[in-house]
Amino acid sequence: MPTLLVVSAHAGDFVWRAGGAIAAATQRGERAVIACLSYGERGESASQWLAGKGLDEIKAIRRGEAEAAASALGAEIEFLDLGDYPLIESPEAVAKLVDVFRRTQPDVVLTHPLLDPYNGDHPAAARMALQARVLAQAIGVANSDGSFPSKEDIIGAPPVFFFEPHQSEQCDFKPNVLLDITAAFPAKRAAMECLPAQKHMWTYYTDLAVRRGVQVKRNAAANLGLAHETMGEAYMRYYPQVTDVLR
Amino acid sequence: MPTLLVVSAHAGDFVWRAGGAIAAATQRGERAVIACLSYGERGESASQWLAGKGLDEIKAIRRGEAEAAASALGAEIEFLDLGDYPLIESPEAVAKLVDVFRRTQPDVVLTHPLLDPYNGDHPAAARMALQARVLAQAIGVANSDGSFPSKEDIIGAPPVFFFEPHQSEQCDFKPNVLLDITAAFPAKRAAMECLPAQKHMWTYYTDLAVRRGVQVKRNAAANLGLAHETMGEAYMRYYPQVTDVLR
Amino acid sequence: MPTLLVVSAHAGDFVWRAGGAIAAATQRGERAVIACLSYGERGESASQWLAGKGLDEIKAIRRGEAEAAASALGAEIEFLDLGDYPLIESPEAVAKLVDVFRRTQPDVVLTHPLLDPYNGDHPAAARMALQARVLAQAIGVANSDGSFPSKEDIIGAPPVFFFEPHQSEQCDFKPNVLLDITAAFPAKRAAMECLPAQKHMWTYYTDLAVRRGVQVKRNAAANLGLAHETMGEAYMRYYPQVTDVLR
Amino acid sequence: MPTLLVVSAHAGDFVWRAGGAIAAATQRGERAVIACLSYGERGESASQWLAGKGLDEIKAIRRGEAEAAASALGAEIEFLDLGDYPLIESPEAVAKLVDVFRRTQPDVVLTHPLLDPYNGDHPAAARMALQARVLAQAIGVANSDGSFPSKEDIIGAPPVFFFEPHQSEQCDFKPNVLLDITAAFPAKRAAMECLPAQKHMWTYYTDLAVRRGVQVKRNAAANLGLAHETMGEAYMRYYPQVTDVLR
Amino acid sequence: MPTLLVVSAHAGDFVWRAGGAIAAATQRGERAVIACLSYGERGESASQWLAGKGLDEIKAIRRGEAEAAASALGAEIEFLDLGDYPLIESPEAVAKLVDVFRRTQPDVVLTHPLLDPYNGDHPAAARMALQARVLAQAIGVANSDGSFPSKEDIIGAPPVFFFEPHQSEQCDFKPNVLLDITAAFPAKRAAMECLPAQKHMWTYYTDLAVRRGVQVKRNAAANLGLAHETMGEAYMRYYPQVTDVLR
Amino acid sequence: MPTLLVVSAHAGDFVWRAGGAIAAATQRGERAVIACLSYGERGESASQWLAGKGLDEIKAIRRGEAEAAASALGAEIEFLDLGDYPLIESPEAVAKLVDVFRRTQPDVVLTHPLLDPYNGDHPAAARMALQARVLAQAIGVANSDGSFPSKEDIIGAPPVFFFEPHQSEQCDFKPNVLLDITAAFPAKRAAMECLPAQKHMWTYYTDLAVRRGVQVKRNAAANLGLAHETMGEAYMRYYPQVTDVLR
Repeated sequence: MPTLLVVSAHAGDFVWRAGGAIAAATQRGERAVIACLSYGERGESASQWLAGKGLDEIKAIRRGEAEAAASALGAEIEFLDLGDYPLIESPEAVAKLVDVFRRTQPDVVLTHPLLDPYNGDHPAAARMALQARVLAQAIGVANSDGSFPSKEDIIGAPPVFFFEPHQSEQCDFKPNVLLDITAAFPAKRAAMECLPAQKHMWTYYTDLAVRRGVQVKRNAAANLGLAHETMGEAYMRYYPQVTDVLR
Repeated sequence: MPTLLVVSAHAGDFVWRAGGAIAAATQRGERAVIACLSYGERGESASQWLAGKGLDEIKAIRRGEAEAAASALGAEIEFLDLGDYPLIESPEAVAKLVDVFRRTQPDVVLTHPLLDPYNGDHPAAARMALQARVLAQAIGVANSDGSFPSKEDIIGAPPVFFFEPHQSEQCDFKPNVLLDITAAFPAKRAAMECLPAQKHMWTYYTDLAVRRGVQVKRNAAANLGLAHETMGEAYMRYYPQVTDVLR
Repeated sequence: MPTLLVVSAHAGDFVWRAGGAIAAATQRGERAVIACLSYGERGESASQWLAGKGLDEIKAIRRGEAEAAASALGAEIEFLDLGDYPLIESPEAVAKLVDVFRRTQPDVVLTHPLLDPYNGDHPAAARMALQARVLAQAIGVANSDGSFPSKEDIIGAPPVFFFEPHQSEQCDFKPNVLLDITAAFPAKRAAMECLPAQKHMWTYYTDLAVRRGVQVKRNAAANLGLAHETMGEAYMRYYPQVTDVLR
Repeated sequence: MPTLLVVSAHAGDFVWRAGGAIAAATQRGERAVIACLSYGERGESASQWLAGKGLDEIKAIRRGEAEAAASALGAEIEFLDLGDYPLIESPEAVAKLVDVFRRTQPDVVLTHPLLDPYNGDHPAAARMALQARVLAQAIGVANSDGSFPSKEDIIGAPPVFFFEPHQSEQCDFKPNVLLDITAAFPAKRAAMECLPAQKHMWTYYTDLAVRRGVQVKRNAAANLGLAHETMGEAYMRYYPQVTDVLR
Repeated sequence: MPTLLVVSAHAGDFVWRAGGAIAAATQRGERAVIACLSYGERGESASQWLAGKGLDEIKAIRRGEAEAAASALGAEIEFLDLGDYPLIESPEAVAKLVDVFRRTQPDVVLTHPLLDPYNGDHPAAARMALQARVLAQAIGVANSDGSFPSKEDIIGAPPVFFFEPHQSEQCDFKPNVLLDITAAFPAKRAAMECLPAQKHMWTYYTDLAVRRGVQVKRNAAANLGLAHETMGEAYMRYYPQVTDVLR
Repeated sequence: MPTLLVVSAHAGDFVWRAGGAIAAATQRGERAVIACLSYGERGESASQWLAGKGLDEIKAIRRGEAEAAASALGAEIEFLDLGDYPLIESPEAVAKLVDVFRRTQPDVVLTHPLLDPYNGDHPAAARMALQARVLAQAIGVANSDGSFPSKEDIIGAPPVFFFEPHQSEQCDFKPNVLLDITAAFPAKRAAMECLPAQKHMWTYYTDLAVRRGVQVKRNAAANLGLAHETMGEAYMRYYPQVTDVLR
């Protein structure tokens, strides 16, 4: 069964930016696993801090919301609880991600782009995901418990796609893949609605899906067969596409 | 029947740089059409000028070789005879290309990349191909005979791929598509051998196919099933890929 | 009286992309002049061609719509009728634009960005606008009627801003100026409604103004005083900003 | 009262590169605060090491010079004494800078650009300044003493400007703001003269101010009113400018 | 005898930007030839237009000054009189440059960089120089009189260096070669003084030579042997350097 | 005696990528020193892990091979044994490299390029090499044993060249120096043959040398005197070239 692995810095990122791709995968019967590096407890929970909640309480709330959203997308989710604002890169954190890669054996990897002047946690997550992906390929790199992987444990070279940041142009995000998420959009919307504290984002990301859907139609070789209200998500492929047919 | 359109500045370019993609298309039963803008009679026929041949004679020789190579690839070829060194851009030349686009209704377009410090004809061909592709989409743009296209005559938005220049890095050519041409390579080799004046290039471009084949294997999610001696060609996709699945 | 000059390839471009800046200028009591290089009669009037209208009729319709939209923005408009699809660059066309620059003496210039893989007319308009701006500065460059300018006729070095293309990232459009158009937006909306053939764009560009408005708020030093529903337009400044205070 | 915050890697940097902007701010009656991350005691004090001075002595000398220079500019200065060559990035150092941001509540931030192949401390300072600016915005990020900020303690989104490095082109420094510092230049010159060990730099940076002043004049919409001997400083704005008028 | 060919858009460009390289070549006993595409009669002669001089008179003055400056540098100069502001690219102009390349057989070529937002003639000159250099290599490309070149007439692949524009960073000019012109500087200064109408530039370009000289010293492997007052010029190499030793 | 210093992440890198430059230096009678940061024991020894060997055994094998290869090139080699996959950057590791720079006093430095999406150790090695080179210049930076350098111990500013990565375009590797290694190639081949576990690479890198040799010939001002079978290596110069003659 093909597996999609999503490495997300905070508890909400995978919903807004990649919910369509995730739901599309699970609707095709594939497995989707979200590795959530932090809960976004410090940097993306302002309303809860303002309401006087404490750190552990906020983490629990965010975890619950993220689990509900993952469920709405048909995906599994796991939390590495590495802390946010800042999300600190370390060999130990990368080693945990190596385990995730080997355990899930992903066919496709989604993560943040490498530049984001508004949020340093996003590129930090991406750098760790990319490093872990390379380390997980090497049979001489031990698992985080010190054991060595078997030939079956190591991974191949799954393609990596960066999902869309909040202010795309400032992040040098130039989409080279436009994904049609029309059929998956209702599930994405349902997942968004699992995040009640960011209700203003529901409309924002619905509008964005319409906008990217217009681009899906404008860049399609022929637009016959495309739904009138095509919804889209934008991605940047990091490694070259390997194919046996140009399309 | 899907159709591949190749816009080539000179009579040999399509062989060395895109022969694998062309043969792969025709082997799948698709149609491939090569629009050859010039014969490369001035800029790429040094040995024949040194042998004392005249312009018309050289054009005839180059035409014959290109026809033989196209035939070896299973492709159709047409010659616009626009002259080379320099290949001069003009509204008239673009209008002829608009006709080609509308007549062939391509699903995929291949041409040169937009930068080449060693050969100005290559980017000139690419600029004209790209302009013609956009003009051919517009129902208000007349054909070169002054007639207006019907709704069926205009084209959609076929993806464009730039094929590999001779010195890739100097042309800012960063491949984002690696094409497996293993099965098509014997046809490509046969086409190369239709160009006897450039015999030293046969080995050169065979080696390049091996090199790009190594990259096909290194960038594939899993290399099971790939031939031991995978052969490859490199491309740059100009517009975003439109897809309903991330792979 | 400060003057804003907008160089627009087609009859509709200035509305969708710069209507807010234009209305804001005229609402401040400044003068705004739109130089429309073509009517977009071939490339942006598909529905009218499909309806069987002829070239002159289409040009007249487009002209009327553009005049109404300019009026809704409080701006003057003039048409150079240079033809579109393709908009052909020529020394003569540039000379006409030199006259426009000298006659209007702009303090600020708006035009298209220099890259647009979807529409070659847009960068062609920008290249001509930029060239004309430099030529208009030189006292040794004659007017298009052969007369020479006086010292008062030549222009200074007005800043140039590129307005937003339809698919920003594909045009390497990285906004470095976010303009608050909240107060001007009703006029922009009214101008959009002067273009009935593109009714689907009304919503599209209203959504875009919301999106850019969110970015206005996120990039403001302090968001006190900003309207709840801030509307925005994005620009790229081409020359360095000259200022006596960093803000 | 508007506040300018300057994050400087070494004790001299703010003088040569941003002295004009600092003096201009204080001359307008604004507050300017310099956060000096190190004294440049190892990497920029060669003459003192050659003279046989010890580490602590050198730090004291550099501190005194920097205080005198800040005073000449009308600015406050504080020293974080993080060490130089290398200036080591750490969460603790960033946390101290978060405190500085919250305490000073800057309206504008100046720091080094992100690339400098000649001096790794400069980009390290910039990365920490940028990270601290984002963290200081978040109400869930504690102060360095573990206390939590109030709603008033957190900061907005002040614009960031990179000042000019020693070899601008090698640092990909492309100025997008040219600041007229004519009135402030005498104060900048006085500050430079507080650094006697680098006397050869006085002329160098005076010449640079002339050079940037020429560019101020060449990029101004109209050069009426500009002083004959306009002096300038060059900056790169990192985030988009937010404005309600294009100028 | 090695030959240096300089392709200059206007009559003064070669002095300010490449005078050191030219004088250094002739001081080594090499030949230097300047191909001046225009006199800069419209765009760079404002003071003479303001003084009421006519076109032919201005061209004659500029020609005389340029001849004197070339002489001060020990160089030959020829004028193609193609007109300026705008310098119009054409196959005929390029053909004349092909003749120049074949006649002079340059070992090194200097010209303007490919981007200059302040002066479109400079990149136009560079594009024509680059195109002519490639055409001059091809034995099948006729001379401008229709005759065909012999094997000895065609040229090899001389390296191309772009000299420094007036506002380097805005032209994406990132020097990758720093030339020590200390010994040649007096001749460059003498050449500058042949251009009395631009007296303010004498100091400006002397200061620039000091600035680039500082960079010569800072980038030299060891600065022993370098003059205290090293003077420099900056260049961008367009094609890769070919060498048999890394230095 | 001129000295070449090569900073290599793993035990084999210097052979494949820089063997020609190293052998050419030693054949000229110069000294070459290779600083090998790790043995590549985890990331580049898959066949030995599959054969069941242990970590220490693998390190010993790799060390022996690297010593043999260095010897075949006439070079000295030292091992810093910093570990690989990941090669972790630290102030301590950089300090050891500072010692190497001061001890060897290199005239030229070779290392990896700064981007490699396939192998994070390569850019990590380059970053540490670049940082150490700058720190080694400063008299106030202590040696790793705490002692301070004398005036003779510190280094100048040796040029840095990045050698070619495995997939050049994906690493933004645009060669600006093409080195003729024809005479040195037999020694490079002998060094390659010291690495029996990577026998398939012998042909691969021989083919690459042919390919780069073709480019040497195509970019040479005149190809007289170049061997028919010119072999080449490609490099990127990081700092500007300092010279007193343009060639």
